[in-house]
Amino acid sequence: MASEQKFGAGIWHFATYVDRYATDGYGPPRTLIEMIDMAGQVGDLSVVDINYPFADPKLSLDAVDVALKRNNLEVIGITPEIYTREFAKGAFTNPDPGVRRRANELINDAANVVRRFGAKYVKLWPGQDGWDYPFQVDHGDLWRASLDGVGELAQQNPDLQFVIEYKPREPRNHMSFDSVARTLLGIEKIGLPNVGILLDFGHSLYGGESPADAAQLAIDHGRLFGMDVNDNLRGWDDDMIAGSVHPIELFEFFYTLRKNKWEGVWQLDQFPFREDCVGAAQSAIGFLKHIEKALNRLDFDAMRAAQAKQDAVTALNLARSALFG
Amino acid sequence: MASEQKFGAGIWHFATYVDRYATDGYGPPRTLIEMIDMAGQVGDLSVVDINYPFADPKLSLDAVDVALKRNNLEVIGITPEIYTREFAKGAFTNPDPGVRRRANELINDAANVVRRFGAKYVKLWPGQDGWDYPFQVDHGDLWRASLDGVGELAQQNPDLQFVIEYKPREPRNHMSFDSVARTLLGIEKIGLPNVGILLDFGHSLYGGESPADAAQLAIDHGRLFGMDVNDNLRGWDDDMIAGSVHPIELFEFFYTLRKNKWEGVWQLDQFPFREDCVGAAQSAIGFLKHIEKALNRLDFDAMRAAQAKQDAVTALNLARSALFG
Amino acid sequence: MASEQKFGAGIWHFATYVDRYATDGYGPPRTLIEMIDMAGQVGDLSVVDINYPFADPKLSLDAVDVALKRNNLEVIGITPEIYTREFAKGAFTNPDPGVRRRANELINDAANVVRRFGAKYVKLWPGQDGWDYPFQVDHGDLWRASLDGVGELAQQNPDLQFVIEYKPREPRNHMSFDSVARTLLGIEKIGLPNVGILLDFGHSLYGGESPADAAQLAIDHGRLFGMDVNDNLRGWDDDMIAGSVHPIELFEFFYTLRKNKWEGVWQLDQFPFREDCVGAAQSAIGFLKHIEKALNRLDFDAMRAAQAKQDAVTALNLARSALFG
Amino acid sequence: MASEQKFGAGIWHFATYVDRYATDGYGPPRTLIEMIDMAGQVGDLSVVDINYPFADPKLSLDAVDVALKRNNLEVIGITPEIYTREFAKGAFTNPDPGVRRRANELINDAANVVRRFGAKYVKLWPGQDGWDYPFQVDHGDLWRASLDGVGELAQQNPDLQFVIEYKPREPRNHMSFDSVARTLLGIEKIGLPNVGILLDFGHSLYGGESPADAAQLAIDHGRLFGMDVNDNLRGWDDDMIAGSVHPIELFEFFYTLRKNKWEGVWQLDQFPFREDCVGAAQSAIGFLKHIEKALNRLDFDAMRAAQAKQDAVTALNLARSALFG
Repeated sequence: MASEQKFGAGIWHFATYVDRYATDGYGPPRTLIEMIDMAGQVGDLSVVDINYPFADPKLSLDAVDVALKRNNLEVIGITPEIYTREFAKGAFTNPDPGVRRRANELINDAANVVRRFGAKYVKLWPGQDGWDYPFQVDHGDLWRASLDGVGELAQQNPDLQFVIEYKPREPRNHMSFDSVARTLLGIEKIGLPNVGILLDFGHSLYGGESPADAAQLAIDHGRLFGMDVNDNLRGWDDDMIAGSVHPIELFEFFYTLRKNKWEGVWQLDQFPFREDCVGAAQSAIGFLKHIEKALNRLDFDAMRAAQAKQDAVTALNLARSALFG
Repeated sequence: MASEQKFGAGIWHFATYVDRYATDGYGPPRTLIEMIDMAGQVGDLSVVDINYPFADPKLSLDAVDVALKRNNLEVIGITPEIYTREFAKGAFTNPDPGVRRRANELINDAANVVRRFGAKYVKLWPGQDGWDYPFQVDHGDLWRASLDGVGELAQQNPDLQFVIEYKPREPRNHMSFDSVARTLLGIEKIGLPNVGILLDFGHSLYGGESPADAAQLAIDHGRLFGMDVNDNLRGWDDDMIAGSVHPIELFEFFYTLRKNKWEGVWQLDQFPFREDCVGAAQSAIGFLKHIEKALNRLDFDAMRAAQAKQDAVTALNLARSALFG
Repeated sequence: MASEQKFGAGIWHFATYVDRYATDGYGPPRTLIEMIDMAGQVGDLSVVDINYPFADPKLSLDAVDVALKRNNLEVIGITPEIYTREFAKGAFTNPDPGVRRRANELINDAANVVRRFGAKYVKLWPGQDGWDYPFQVDHGDLWRASLDGVGELAQQNPDLQFVIEYKPREPRNHMSFDSVARTLLGIEKIGLPNVGILLDFGHSLYGGESPADAAQLAIDHGRLFGMDVNDNLRGWDDDMIAGSVHPIELFEFFYTLRKNKWEGVWQLDQFPFREDCVGAAQSAIGFLKHIEKALNRLDFDAMRAAQAKQDAVTALNLARSALFG
Repeated sequence: MASEQKFGAGIWHFATYVDRYATDGYGPPRTLIEMIDMAGQVGDLSVVDINYPFADPKLSLDAVDVALKRNNLEVIGITPEIYTREFAKGAFTNPDPGVRRRANELINDAANVVRRFGAKYVKLWPGQDGWDYPFQVDHGDLWRASLDGVGELAQQNPDLQFVIEYKPREPRNHMSFDSVARTLLGIEKIGLPNVGILLDFGHSLYGGESPADAAQLAIDHGRLFGMDVNDNLRGWDDDMIAGSVHPIELFEFFYTLRKNKWEGVWQLDQFPFREDCVGAAQSAIGFLKHIEKALNRLDFDAMRAAQAKQDAVTALNLARSALFG
């Protein structure tokens, strides 16, 4: 059975990065066009998720389109940058109503870019919405503002999907949308059909979830709109190469998707700080293809039977035998 | 202003414990009557939460009642032991329908004990409902069984409250009811008025929540039916003396309760493995009384103003000044 | 190349367990003889590590010997139970000098059992030596007592090896011998040739170490006297089936041993609370044999070259290709 | 008793920061001179630790000296920036010998700045020395290079102190000098009198150590050359305001210093990303002064007696009574 799985990546996979120590960056800055060309070099990517606004304000959508086309790439989503300096104390929950308004405007602009590219969704990653210190915020107010902000956008753009990428923390010490259950609870409260979850495998893992369980829960609520993968050491969002640390839970995650006939793009959200970014993407996709084949080998009926008895040894042996050949 | 706060404790605070290493126990076993008498020695306890069935099957409810009365104690809740050998693979989610049935029967028996003592709730702590290994369970089935089990009880006993004490893990490597948001999501799905949350400060803390935020969320959903406190090192349910490690977040937790005019009992859920249990309870309650006074000193208006700006430094200084005198 | 690797297990792998909730145990108690017979059923075990004293005080060493022989098992080490009720506040560091003396006597008795069985070492796992609370101990005194206790034993028994199995925590909230570096620092201070480390893969992992790095450090100090494996979720000593969560780091661990020509027994330290213990051992050893073959496939020269450049992508691809076939 | 305690801060406390998301920074960049003037505004700082080289290459040492003098500040140490882009794969352990050489030169330059200002030490914080992925490095080589790099500097500059600030991780997923014990083990191997530890309270805390125990161990090895404080949520180096989360362990840390008559500067290492930096420093120092007074109130003899019995309840009550008034 030949692979027909579609792969994608956040375009930031091909950027260079700064942190609070290497303030001069882990490499020279790259333009968006350069990043798109690097994404094209991976050879297996069909779609990308692009940050907005572009670092270069003069860069036109048409120029981006040309670069995408020459690399056979489409846009799956747009990620508005609602986590830069202006939004340091939050986008939806910023104490300053003017900042909240500008966040709304920026995301509405991003919605138009989604339309321009025929993309699937606006991705909301409100990394600065949350708190750092005990006593810093009124938790009730903060949560209401989080839901109001997302709900307003969904109402303003009923033709588009909004996906929330939850994450336990970073850059804020605690994020409002911190887990699958909290996010679903909020989405149910908002009550609109066009708000869903983009499940990041690594966020789920280091948040103490089982990513497979998180995926099942989101699917059962009809809200799993997207997903991406990477890996980490379960204590932080290390954004390592997918499968480099937790291949078995990654396998269980994709097993859960297939069992539920969830058929979206398998995306990468990796930050290769010190690695060759094309090589890091190829390494991940190579392993994802291995997982795809292992799913074909896996005896789903035997697995269901083992799970019905909570027979961990048999279930593990089945998974191993499919994954390790 | 004299303290009118009511204090309580899980009766297991006065037990001795075993673990997988000290299989001979950290002290000689104690009878329930001895534990009740030790609870009485604390001097500040008004209510206790009692496990059921009793270790001694011959012990009558009347004998327990006599012991409680001579110590001026009332029963706030009954905790059925749905986490012993029979339930090692779950009470509500056990693969064996017979075990699930016996769990239901045991909890219904416990409900009758709640009625007998005029207590407030049946406490559900399904510590064996969850999983240990990747691939071990069908996550969708497990979660449905969790909700079905609780829902059935709530329907069978509409005159009583059922409180779910969520916890991230232990003894299972992952518990079904693992967080405040997951539990609320499930409770909303069950859709009955007599199911709520008993929020354990320590479970919230080591689950990566802010206990103050968790309390606010449960209150905003009308589901904070009870609470208890202890402390830990944020990595495990150490059940240490309340305030011994995280006094500031404990203070924020009680600040949140008072701000919302939540007026229940302040309970202890501590496991003094190697400590004098009466002394450990007195130490905790001494600190809770300190917190009560600190709440009286705290400038709530100034705190609200600081929080409205997310001014962490001012908020912290206000909290410190009230708490550290 | 046929497997000539020797495998072993702690005999407690075949016990049943209690914890603070399932106080009636996860199964009916088993005698040591029953456990030895179950170890024999695994089919691949050559050696076992046995706790001392035996649960049944009437059980003779000869009877144990007979059971071992009929299962083709030898004794690699004896683990004195210095973590039961009497030692709840420590064996080497107990505030009561009488308890410290009895710990010494008990371990000297265990040393005689080591001699009786021609075993390799006395294993010291001082799980109760440490602390629970801030301010509870004088840290300088505690550490000195830890070293004095081990040093005294090594001097009393110069013909035997003593191996310290360090662990971050549990049952104490913090153990004195908590990490590879701390333990080596102490061993260097003791300054005797017959004190070394038994490295538990899972303890290293959930202590935040890289087990491969820990093994290298112990080897470079000439102190890696033994090892055992299992797995966990990086937050607690879950003692799960080896390779069930972290197969890549397990592979790196054994890669490090082979690279250094370390040729000891590959042992299991698993606690199958709810699993069939023979099946859990077989599942682990099956995977260890897979790792053994993967080591034969791995291109060590290419790996060294990648590591010399810190080329994570190439190193990962090499490891994957050997491990996942 | 009037405070005679000297306070200090890393000058980066008064900088603005970038991270991988807010790449435009949490505020406009500040010059070193501006930072020094802000340090002066705190009112209680006597010394600062300064990064080298300066962001502005034209800034003269004399100009810095003038700014320091007008703010009554002295230099306690110089922190060479061995964690910027060039050193992304390590300073002492970089695979490129040319980079290792430049690290040595840069630190020798920093040593001259230490001499110029009559400061106490060169601070080594090799945040990029370590690894990210399983299989990425040869652990033995990496550790040897770490020790060689530090040892060479100490030999080249026998008139100066070199202090290693260990840290578990960040920016590398794992740092070579990751804990107090590992660092002491390395320092003993280096075997030179002018290499010691600068103990960061937060690094110790989130590394799973008890900072009080770490301090005691470093003191007992004669290697506690410096210290700084902050706070975090035990999972990451959050560099929050000292005492904002863990005041009791902070108190135990200073108790340990006083008990040992360790009389150095109490320094701050905080990163007020979103806070007023002068206010954050003042808040911390206000609390440190509270701790100083609490130490004066604390009954040291009673504490020693409680610790000699491992009496956690009494020890906690003593500490509370001194700290909470």
